[in-house]
Amino acid sequence: MKSINLGILGMGTVASGLISIIEFNNTKIVGNIDKQLVISKVLVKDISKKRSVNLPADTYTTDAYEIINNKDIQIIVELIGGINPAYEYIRNALNNKKHVVTANKALLATHGEELEQLAHINGVRLMYEASVGGGIPIINTITENLSANEFEHIAGIINGTTNYILTQMTENGLEYEQAVKEAQRLGFAEADPSSDVDGDDAAYKIAILSSIAFDQRISVSDIPKEGITKISKEDIIYAKELGYNIKLLASASKSNNEIELRVHPAFVPSDHPLSTVKNEFNAVFLKGNAVGEIMLYGKGAGSLPTGSAVLNDIVSIVKNESRKYAESINADKYKIVNRAYKKYYIRFEVIDKPGVLARIASVFGKNNISLDSVVQRQKNGNNTAPLVFITHDIERKNIDNALKEISNFDCVIQIASIIVVEDF
Amino acid sequence: MKSINLGILGMGTVASGLISIIEFNNTKIVGNIDKQLVISKVLVKDISKKRSVNLPADTYTTDAYEIINNKDIQIIVELIGGINPAYEYIRNALNNKKHVVTANKALLATHGEELEQLAHINGVRLMYEASVGGGIPIINTITENLSANEFEHIAGIINGTTNYILTQMTENGLEYEQAVKEAQRLGFAEADPSSDVDGDDAAYKIAILSSIAFDQRISVSDIPKEGITKISKEDIIYAKELGYNIKLLASASKSNNEIELRVHPAFVPSDHPLSTVKNEFNAVFLKGNAVGEIMLYGKGAGSLPTGSAVLNDIVSIVKNESRKYAESINADKYKIVNRAYKKYYIRFEVIDKPGVLARIASVFGKNNISLDSVVQRQKNGNNTAPLVFITHDIERKNIDNALKEISNFDCVIQIASIIVVEDF
Repeated sequence: MKSINLGILGMGTVASGLISIIEFNNTKIVGNIDKQLVISKVLVKDISKKRSVNLPADTYTTDAYEIINNKDIQIIVELIGGINPAYEYIRNALNNKKHVVTANKALLATHGEELEQLAHINGVRLMYEASVGGGIPIINTITENLSANEFEHIAGIINGTTNYILTQMTENGLEYEQAVKEAQRLGFAEADPSSDVDGDDAAYKIAILSSIAFDQRISVSDIPKEGITKISKEDIIYAKELGYNIKLLASASKSNNEIELRVHPAFVPSDHPLSTVKNEFNAVFLKGNAVGEIMLYGKGAGSLPTGSAVLNDIVSIVKNESRKYAESINADKYKIVNRAYKKYYIRFEVIDKPGVLARIASVFGKNNISLDSVVQRQKNGNNTAPLVFITHDIERKNIDNALKEISNFDCVIQIASIIVVEDF
Repeated sequence: MKSINLGILGMGTVASGLISIIEFNNTKIVGNIDKQLVISKVLVKDISKKRSVNLPADTYTTDAYEIINNKDIQIIVELIGGINPAYEYIRNALNNKKHVVTANKALLATHGEELEQLAHINGVRLMYEASVGGGIPIINTITENLSANEFEHIAGIINGTTNYILTQMTENGLEYEQAVKEAQRLGFAEADPSSDVDGDDAAYKIAILSSIAFDQRISVSDIPKEGITKISKEDIIYAKELGYNIKLLASASKSNNEIELRVHPAFVPSDHPLSTVKNEFNAVFLKGNAVGEIMLYGKGAGSLPTGSAVLNDIVSIVKNESRKYAESINADKYKIVNRAYKKYYIRFEVIDKPGVLARIASVFGKNNISLDSVVQRQKNGNNTAPLVFITHDIERKNIDNALKEISNFDCVIQIASIIVVEDF
């Protein structure tokens, strides 16, 4: 039987998951591709380190070019992450006419278009299913399974760390800081969690998804983002009472010739499928103009799920399935706009005295903001009271104008939260 | 540009959806396959009938063999449904070396293996994404996207009619008969709804899914089935109180060398993703040994969603993607068992007098059935009372033995319900 030789750059959790699956599902894989996958070379930092996987000692190398320039290796799997030196390694691998599989979302969101063109020029493939949604086959679903659809809307819970934090706040009443600590303790959050909680990770991923769904290269800088650091226990409680869960959504929508993108916390109706996506799970909700509403749910991270996605790309390359190439991606097919025409949840802390509600409501009216609901509660201990509004659909700039005026009122202690309410 | 000529057998809702999508997404499709899809011929019963789609009059024919024997047609799309004459048409089409796309679940669940082999012998493809789950790309996900996984468990809500009925009973408090009438009024149920409500339709579909997931041809006759006709409003209310929703599940599980299959109503935990699958929506929940838990959710029927699935098969054929052929399906790789080792919800109607609970519990104990919870309520008007048990995991035969003895008790008016409780 013919062998396919793999060179793996990096030996972290995804690489060890990949190597394990190739071992324990070998029969299934061989039955599928009729070839034997062989791990030829693995790039590591320290050859002497003890590994959880069982490979011959001479498989390991500390020289990336022993893999990239290796004539016997057909597929290079890049799992070191980060832009440099992964960028250089992948360019050289593609120029050496090797297929490349990567899980590197930061690199793809930054240099994806160039690398896809390089792959095309060299007649090889660049695959990256594992870069978004871990084990969930979302990229292949968009580019292959639903390729005859024009996509209108994508809304993803594609950052497991923030979803874990928000779930813990919702289900166990934790404050934000406590939930972050718990996530760190369990390994779901980094010591410095900022790239997750500020929305950067989700922005990379929605840049990749929207580029392939809309056939237009979307840059991370096109994506307004807001993280979850300002979400308080109070907001979570109000959301629940009003029939919602707060989720960090990465969303992209297309209508006529405009695309709008955003990473932001949002109220998601509790009976919507995205609301049952808890803890470290991910999901992507799509609307296609033929298939209608579709959602894919699964593990967004982890050694085996992410290894499964990498392996699927390898299998797809070996089966030599044809695929649309990136040169069809249009740089400016659609205009990118930022209107945020949505419903909004706005929570104020106000002085508890007559006329406050009327004054605020009047400013909303002046800015064409009509209201869906108002919740006025008992006062806090210090003669202040929370006041919560949910608006009807309106552009964000109207909200900002109104809040600018309202923030000057003596009776308004603070504008505590502004969160989008998604109705789907 | 090269054309691909399609011959369509049947001109119902799915065919008109397919034809519409080919028209309104033509740019996207051509960008993808670099060929023009052309509807060459369509088999209809009545040529003079007015159609919602706009095709030249000479496209229509009443003679299937004008399509099947047509030298210019490369792909035949069978959308007439039912076993005969679809079976004969498809065999002849494959023998004429035409690729075949079908949505015919009854035919596939009955003659699928033979037809797949016939396709292989003739070097053409037989594709059937639309046969299960409408627009949801579940077949391709199992055979392609997650093909490096060994699947351990499949649980699907794959019959929209029963899911609509159960959702209406749950959310609007309808009785079973009322919900059926409502489903019929909206076109979600046939005048004779038996193939849906008795579980036959779901059994066909899980036979197809489990065959491809486990690489073993599963016959519909291997699948014990129980429909939803006995589900009462009381059961729905108890399920809700206990934190569950009742769903008709089509399930298949594999452990060691055994496969177990079943179509049955089940208690699904209300925070499980399958619980948010409402009304006519479908979903399939999978466990793979690498990817872990995955769920796909979407529209299980309808003109455009199902047309989208048919079109995806056509695109996949045109792109000439390789695919595992059916001859690898093993007739008896795994032993098919029927143990139903599960938790059970059992509802009795009993005479309201002391000692009844103790007598019933003692029979459970004798049959090794341990209890998770018991709900005893106020009596009904006529001196009887409902008595509800949820057991721990136990084989169904132990339940049946115990109930046989209990059914003879004077104090037991009736064993009103026995429903599996799924914990996932």
